[in-house]
Amino acid sequence: MQHTNIYNMGLNQNAANFAALTPISFLQRSASVFPNHVAQIHHDVKITWAQTYKRCVQLASALNKAGITEGDTVAFIAPNIVPVFEAHFGVPMCGAVLNAINTRLDAEAISFILQHAEAKIIFVDREFSETASRAIKMLGANRPRIIHIDDPYYEGGQLIGEMDYEAFIATGDEDYAYKTPKDEWDAITLNYTSGTTGNPKGVVYHHRGAYLNAVSNAVSWDMGDHPVYLWTLPMFHCNGWCFPWTIAATAGTSVSLRHVRADDIYNSIRDNKVGYFCGAPIVLNMLNNADEELKAGIDHQVKVMTAGAPPPASVIEGMESMGFVVTHVYGLTETYGPCVVCAWHSEWDSKTPTEKARLKSRQGVKSPMQEDLMVADPETMVPVPKDGKTIGEIFMRGNLVMKGYLKNPRATEEAFQGGWFRSGDLAVWHADTYVEIKDRSKDIIISGGENISSVEVEDVLYRHPDVSEAAVVARPDEKWGETPCAFITLKAGSKVTEQEIMDFCRENMAGFKTPKTVVFRELPKTSTGKIQKFVLRDQVKEL
Amino acid sequence: MQHTNIYNMGLNQNAANFAALTPISFLQRSASVFPNHVAQIHHDVKITWAQTYKRCVQLASALNKAGITEGDTVAFIAPNIVPVFEAHFGVPMCGAVLNAINTRLDAEAISFILQHAEAKIIFVDREFSETASRAIKMLGANRPRIIHIDDPYYEGGQLIGEMDYEAFIATGDEDYAYKTPKDEWDAITLNYTSGTTGNPKGVVYHHRGAYLNAVSNAVSWDMGDHPVYLWTLPMFHCNGWCFPWTIAATAGTSVSLRHVRADDIYNSIRDNKVGYFCGAPIVLNMLNNADEELKAGIDHQVKVMTAGAPPPASVIEGMESMGFVVTHVYGLTETYGPCVVCAWHSEWDSKTPTEKARLKSRQGVKSPMQEDLMVADPETMVPVPKDGKTIGEIFMRGNLVMKGYLKNPRATEEAFQGGWFRSGDLAVWHADTYVEIKDRSKDIIISGGENISSVEVEDVLYRHPDVSEAAVVARPDEKWGETPCAFITLKAGSKVTEQEIMDFCRENMAGFKTPKTVVFRELPKTSTGKIQKFVLRDQVKEL
Repeated sequence: MQHTNIYNMGLNQNAANFAALTPISFLQRSASVFPNHVAQIHHDVKITWAQTYKRCVQLASALNKAGITEGDTVAFIAPNIVPVFEAHFGVPMCGAVLNAINTRLDAEAISFILQHAEAKIIFVDREFSETASRAIKMLGANRPRIIHIDDPYYEGGQLIGEMDYEAFIATGDEDYAYKTPKDEWDAITLNYTSGTTGNPKGVVYHHRGAYLNAVSNAVSWDMGDHPVYLWTLPMFHCNGWCFPWTIAATAGTSVSLRHVRADDIYNSIRDNKVGYFCGAPIVLNMLNNADEELKAGIDHQVKVMTAGAPPPASVIEGMESMGFVVTHVYGLTETYGPCVVCAWHSEWDSKTPTEKARLKSRQGVKSPMQEDLMVADPETMVPVPKDGKTIGEIFMRGNLVMKGYLKNPRATEEAFQGGWFRSGDLAVWHADTYVEIKDRSKDIIISGGENISSVEVEDVLYRHPDVSEAAVVARPDEKWGETPCAFITLKAGSKVTEQEIMDFCRENMAGFKTPKTVVFRELPKTSTGKIQKFVLRDQVKEL
Repeated sequence: MQHTNIYNMGLNQNAANFAALTPISFLQRSASVFPNHVAQIHHDVKITWAQTYKRCVQLASALNKAGITEGDTVAFIAPNIVPVFEAHFGVPMCGAVLNAINTRLDAEAISFILQHAEAKIIFVDREFSETASRAIKMLGANRPRIIHIDDPYYEGGQLIGEMDYEAFIATGDEDYAYKTPKDEWDAITLNYTSGTTGNPKGVVYHHRGAYLNAVSNAVSWDMGDHPVYLWTLPMFHCNGWCFPWTIAATAGTSVSLRHVRADDIYNSIRDNKVGYFCGAPIVLNMLNNADEELKAGIDHQVKVMTAGAPPPASVIEGMESMGFVVTHVYGLTETYGPCVVCAWHSEWDSKTPTEKARLKSRQGVKSPMQEDLMVADPETMVPVPKDGKTIGEIFMRGNLVMKGYLKNPRATEEAFQGGWFRSGDLAVWHADTYVEIKDRSKDIIISGGENISSVEVEDVLYRHPDVSEAAVVARPDEKWGETPCAFITLKAGSKVTEQEIMDFCRENMAGFKTPKTVVFRELPKTSTGKIQKFVLRDQVKEL
């Protein structure tokens, strides 16, 4: 029982002084205050906030008419175009839960997800019709209804649904009394982790967390009113780090992008005056290495948020020389995307480019609306000293941590054991409280009893002028237990040898950390451009 | 019972994924991430975020050692200097509730507040020692402990407490395990309204609302990181519109200000590179009319938030010609200060100065994190048409509405009747959804940003032996916005003069409440004998 005092007598929640937090309110406000401001751009199509609101209400109504109700799952397999953006509002506006599926997955994985999430209806873009068809067939009798998305700016693939997205929302009522959550703890979306082993886990987000992270993004990135945001980051990853909702909170503009290509990105930045985009360092690297012609004519400030791996100094320097400002963030699917940010200190402005890049390569501190972050011993949960050396696991807790894993109480319990979310990432804690990841637990190389951070070795490799991409994994070794093995993609035309790379490493790091094996080849990657170390670990066995 | 679905099975709140929202977390984050950034400036004294955090923890600990516990009231009578800023964190960090008292009130009103709030301890700045002493004496045996604030930059008044604020916090423990709310609905502060009738009402704020409005301010005003904020607005008004917490959320700098004087303000803006301040139009007017010399040397952008009355076009134009950007907001004590903002549209940039001022004089739309706003018939609660003509009452609801009135269930119930908060302000609703106030709640006079209850002034007038009948209404005033104007019918044979009435008032109420105009005449009445104030409001125009 709560201690009774004069401040909690007769001062209860009621309809006047309490509302469940939900990002739906951001859509409603932007449509009401800035009805004629452009909310979405897709090639030549511009859709205002008033129109977007109307379309989302219609989507909610159409879903409702199709029998979708509270707690039902609505799946999407589509690129970053209008329907997926609208689904972030329209689906919860009928009480349902949005599951945006990774479009690069194979039919088996998609089939598993559809079945596990008990999806009642699925929206399929024509580009992904083949894989989706196969995935749906595997479901047997329990097939969801299919609505296809017929993007007029794309010609490939097939239309496999019973009708088109536009026809579907046209069945909805503009005046539908859409639903807002009874409880802000109600689910809003479902995101499957890629999971390197076993089946993917379904991470459930709630309205409260979506609302708070949407605002935290805006505050953390100082977005102001009306930011123009380009969708280089897939909306099927942590709901695009919650940016659909951030764009609504700031009455901004969502610029669609089907394919992550340098020409499309630069053209859109120039033509639409894009001010913000997110992407893995690999995307930044691609933009950096693009033809100079593509970069011409961009003279406004562009802010870039990057995560997934520490951005190499050369990438940061390259982006910033174009006038792009890079912010490094960190998070997991379980934390609504980034909940850690490398917040900048103005006194760092005077540092050398190399020193700046080093500071920026650290993951950083808790984002404005995350409650707690610590690096601690994974066993005892005692925080490690802030000495920049002692390695521990990153733990988070607060309102930007998932509701849990869908239909997986055991995994949920494990993840939250001890009252914190366990990230599985290993890091040091610097004296200034900034966290720096040294490795995923499974990526640490233990050689002769010494821990070697594969990230640290990769950082050195990236400093070599001929190295385009690098990944370091453990190679089993009779004598040392493990030794570092470097997989490298060289820049076009490079003549550098394996030995020269090893010599370069020896000059730049402790001898025991130097790769004992160097292999030149194309690196295997995930749909978001993350290097797949587990594939490399398999390849190591065949060396 | 909630509908059961796969999304609410076994996905409950726990320590890892839920934290009560509280602005205390903003202080903790700023101290941890930006420990050496200056949090407070008071003349030559600069206090960093790490120091501010330590001092707040010590204040909480000292209060705890002094026997203050959950739900106790801690009162402050002080200007906008360091201790009051720190109290916004330190007081709730021991579980107590902060009551910052209007320093312009007379001893009777302060005494009523201290007794009603059951204040256990009161902090008194030396400038307000005399009124505070008298107020405390009136309490009889139930006196709170007194701690005085000995500002080294102020020499007047007396030190009336058992010790000084600095000595008091020195009794606190730096390592005190401070409290965060068990429930975000717990009270954080108490703010008394001046009320239209009878005694002032105690408006209770909770941690959730303080947190959300702090962030809403930052988003609404696009404050970015590290804003420098000058305290022209009293912290005893709606906790300075929640800006102490906004400054912590943005790791900004709080610049103290004892007296609202043009020279002090301009000097501080220049010397401290102040970027943000709030104030009633009268403050803006004073700054506008100040000597040109004072204005020299300010070449950075300054943003000004104003409320209390629509800012006249001349004031807006004057401020903007200096490069100051004016934002008009609206709210009440019951809504944590401003919860309505005249959000700007970029297409208005090309309007004439007069047209811009007209647009800006409207109160506007709901702020980013307020849930709902409407203008509706006060009886039926049916929204009025958005025609810019039909007058209705302003209603709000959502998370930026108070918890309720302390120990006043009847007033709380009335305020929330129908599931909305009734503002008592009359307005029209424009086609673009912007609200414009047409008539303040009938009996309130707003003079220099202070609410004056006409009933309270009438009560004093009625105490004069020669007064037969009295009615007080607002008289428009170029300098103050409004001043109280008293219409009086004297008793037969009285020879009292207008000046004598004013002198009597000055002896019996706070100076700012004293009628600036006194008119002797027969009062217009309804058939049932009620005084027709609307007739008097017409007559005022002819004075």
